[in-house]
Amino acid sequence: MTMTVTVPGLMQDFPLTTNHFLWRMARVNPRTRVVTILDDEGTSDETTLGDVADRSLRLAASLDRLGIRPGDRIGTVAWNTVSHLIAYFGVMSMGAVLHTVNLRLHAQQIVWTVNHAEDRILIVDDNLAELVFPLLADMPTVERIVVIGGGDVPEAPVPVQRFDALADADPGDYRMPELDERSAAALCYTSGTTGDPKGVLYSHRSIAVHSLIMSGSDVFGIAKHDVVLATVPMFHAMGWGLPFLATMAGADLVLPGRHLGARSLARTIAAHRVTWSTGVPTIWMDLLRHVDAGGDAARDGLAPLRKLILGGTKVPEDLIRRFARDLDVEVISGWGMTEIFPGGAVAATDPRLSTEDNLAHQTIAGRISPFYELRLVDDEGIVQPHDGRSRGEIQMRGPSVAGAYFRLEDEAADRFDDGWLRTGDIGTVDAEGWVTLVDRSKDMIKSGGEWISSADLESALQNHELVAECAVVGRPDDRWSERPHAFVVLTEDVPDANLKDFLAGQVPKWWIPEEFERIDAIPRTTTGKFDKKLLRSRLTHTDDRVIEGAPA
Amino acid sequence: MTMTVTVPGLMQDFPLTTNHFLWRMARVNPRTRVVTILDDEGTSDETTLGDVADRSLRLAASLDRLGIRPGDRIGTVAWNTVSHLIAYFGVMSMGAVLHTVNLRLHAQQIVWTVNHAEDRILIVDDNLAELVFPLLADMPTVERIVVIGGGDVPEAPVPVQRFDALADADPGDYRMPELDERSAAALCYTSGTTGDPKGVLYSHRSIAVHSLIMSGSDVFGIAKHDVVLATVPMFHAMGWGLPFLATMAGADLVLPGRHLGARSLARTIAAHRVTWSTGVPTIWMDLLRHVDAGGDAARDGLAPLRKLILGGTKVPEDLIRRFARDLDVEVISGWGMTEIFPGGAVAATDPRLSTEDNLAHQTIAGRISPFYELRLVDDEGIVQPHDGRSRGEIQMRGPSVAGAYFRLEDEAADRFDDGWLRTGDIGTVDAEGWVTLVDRSKDMIKSGGEWISSADLESALQNHELVAECAVVGRPDDRWSERPHAFVVLTEDVPDANLKDFLAGQVPKWWIPEEFERIDAIPRTTTGKFDKKLLRSRLTHTDDRVIEGAPA
Repeated sequence: MTMTVTVPGLMQDFPLTTNHFLWRMARVNPRTRVVTILDDEGTSDETTLGDVADRSLRLAASLDRLGIRPGDRIGTVAWNTVSHLIAYFGVMSMGAVLHTVNLRLHAQQIVWTVNHAEDRILIVDDNLAELVFPLLADMPTVERIVVIGGGDVPEAPVPVQRFDALADADPGDYRMPELDERSAAALCYTSGTTGDPKGVLYSHRSIAVHSLIMSGSDVFGIAKHDVVLATVPMFHAMGWGLPFLATMAGADLVLPGRHLGARSLARTIAAHRVTWSTGVPTIWMDLLRHVDAGGDAARDGLAPLRKLILGGTKVPEDLIRRFARDLDVEVISGWGMTEIFPGGAVAATDPRLSTEDNLAHQTIAGRISPFYELRLVDDEGIVQPHDGRSRGEIQMRGPSVAGAYFRLEDEAADRFDDGWLRTGDIGTVDAEGWVTLVDRSKDMIKSGGEWISSADLESALQNHELVAECAVVGRPDDRWSERPHAFVVLTEDVPDANLKDFLAGQVPKWWIPEEFERIDAIPRTTTGKFDKKLLRSRLTHTDDRVIEGAPA
Repeated sequence: MTMTVTVPGLMQDFPLTTNHFLWRMARVNPRTRVVTILDDEGTSDETTLGDVADRSLRLAASLDRLGIRPGDRIGTVAWNTVSHLIAYFGVMSMGAVLHTVNLRLHAQQIVWTVNHAEDRILIVDDNLAELVFPLLADMPTVERIVVIGGGDVPEAPVPVQRFDALADADPGDYRMPELDERSAAALCYTSGTTGDPKGVLYSHRSIAVHSLIMSGSDVFGIAKHDVVLATVPMFHAMGWGLPFLATMAGADLVLPGRHLGARSLARTIAAHRVTWSTGVPTIWMDLLRHVDAGGDAARDGLAPLRKLILGGTKVPEDLIRRFARDLDVEVISGWGMTEIFPGGAVAATDPRLSTEDNLAHQTIAGRISPFYELRLVDDEGIVQPHDGRSRGEIQMRGPSVAGAYFRLEDEAADRFDDGWLRTGDIGTVDAEGWVTLVDRSKDMIKSGGEWISSADLESALQNHELVAECAVVGRPDDRWSERPHAFVVLTEDVPDANLKDFLAGQVPKWWIPEEFERIDAIPRTTTGKFDKKLLRSRLTHTDDRVIEGAPA
């Protein structure tokens, strides 16, 4: 899309890669703390960014010795720990591609993504070995397993090594290669739309530029004096970029492992004086409830906290008000997706405005961030004005926006339009770049910050011999934001078709709808498609039951 | 220096150019104010970034109609005004190269730079026409003059047009081209070293990446709710990047023209509620004196101000203390140069530290910024450790660091070392990336934020028939930081050699030393070079006389 350079500038040809992050860890922020939470009692492990840089090099040297070459894919099935952080920088900076496996996918989807990525090595938390090892027989490209932690693991059909042995090994004279910034650095599959997961292949450049964008004081605005608690799993859009942003800023980084319950979070914030965090609203609502139950002592422990940037789903206004009132914490909304990283828009507050005027912005998606461009396109393909009223699908472009899906360059070409990414989100944009989401692509349900594919659920239900047709839509839910609700037309008038049990083997447990509503026929639009808008309008009730198996 | 891409990432190929800044002005910050101060009484003109974007396009269309093509150079001889801002974006975004002429250079140097750049058009403030027009006969490449403002101008040997006529003209169907990010965007000559000025040819990419780096909350940290007063001339390293950084952030921008006296500054800050500014310490020391004389009323007017980032010379500790104590303003130091932009290092404070511990950092150059790398190299070419003690010349690399000088790729190759820029600054770096300057290249004197070349002064003095040899060094000066001091050996014992008068026609007036000290011989080092270190050590006295002709 670019024209020829007429007169090239005479600036240095310095590549935007993760290698600079390692330089900065070692040379600017070597004493910055990295804390990993090891259990729900608050036991923790602590090291420094200087050590992370050193061990990243050692890991890279070990992988090089094992025959890993630039461009090879290495998968991680891991929670947020310092080892996962070292895997990030060690793998990417040696030119290999880090595939962060979404461990919440159904087993069959995990197998599918590992095979699609052709991962040569899987780096697996010891506490996830029971999940991964039984699948290895179906993953022919995986030559080796590297286990994080010292826990026992099952037998495996390929060699198994311990992460620490690789990350502690003498690197000899190994040096990180000088990488082209357009090289692939990481691979993350999104389950946001119909069909098989789609892989976003992040370049070094996109990660570096995104980190710089996020560093802006109106965007994520992390300072060196912050203590960042990274609650977003590192397998979700690069942990919303925090492993890069925090290390670039030199902020202390607290990695909670899988210990994200309210009691653990509260303890972690108090013990490590966390000032800044992020995540989906659900876990922070739980934290508020915990604080309410714990009284002044619980409240005092949260005193260091100053800012939360929440996303993945709409941020409830009540949550914002209560954090501000009870804990003096600023909560703002951010909007992103795997294809554009997390910070496409952020709802920064303006101290010149009143609390109420700010609140009107804090709950919507946010104001578009630097070096992201956006347009609205309606169903007819007409670009809509940014007037705060006109609706359209949000399309995005920028240096940190996906331009294709991995190995689906042709098949998924319809997700792109003349160089713009089609996000699937329907929204409005006002004259000052504030984005409001008003609807989503028909086939996605967002539950606890995770996507559920209604099309996949429908496809699975269709396999049942009694199901004539079915449609799954999202039902509003106070706790999970949305839960799937299935409308089914049965071929026979049976009292119970056992649809829940039928789905159990086919989709993740937490995808299974709580409610299957029998109807005579699925309503259709004039063009013959299922009228999901009408079906959604029937679901006006909400409840707050705790749903077994939903994501925590 | 980069290896081949093994597996390219699949992100969009979106270029990092100034075109995105125009998109953002129009789509995100169209109502942001841009104020130009018109006189010392505080008269001002106000418009918006939406208007700046619109008029930049119109200017580009007009220049295109005049035959300007991508890669052509257009000079500006102008103070900080909204017209200069429009010239920045209009010229760069159409692919032409904006040469910001340093109007404080001596007339012969101005002619030299315009001829070296081969500027096709000069955009000149009406109040600078008397300076520029007499030089046009010696500038054969200049085809046309564009005058900013409505003031009378002298006759000129080339066509003269008014800026507003071009920036208001109907753009027709002109659209900005899609530029390669490595295209040249701007050209800025540095007079920091010996010999002729050297041109730094900034690429679009370097400007965009530098803007993102500076946006970090620990770097310049400008937010949308700030009101930025840009006191640094836009012909100095792109006005320290503020025209880009402020418009990207959407902060209100106040452009003071040439009205930088203390009374004007105080009035501007009060009238426009300035929160954030920058510049050389001199003007801010003057402001403090003005406030002292004006009492509470003067102090109250400065209440909106919260932060100053000062640079160009060491920031006096007393200045920092008094701004903090009397005005509740945080003053920190930044370090840069034309070749690396302003923000190579910034001395961000840390609220966890005591005032005194922070102060120890605030006056030194600063902590190295993201995506800048640095090393220290001693006289023998040995890379020195970052231990806070070892000294060496600071060498820099990064995406916003010059890789060569314009049309001096070979001649000035000695200013680069294996891909690193030799800054000429001697310093130390500690284990956490804090840079302290301990000396400078022997041949530069910094006076009021501007460079004086001691070699050029020496060369001019040598032309005097009575001068046998001479050496010029910087003498510490409370007001200007340094003033040149000449040591001369005369061939005859005359009472007055009239050296001041002799220099008057050869160098800028403010370069002329106040003191010419006669000595019998210039001391020499063991290798036979002038021992300027010894000469400097003799100059221990300081004074605060106002020096006629020094830069204001």
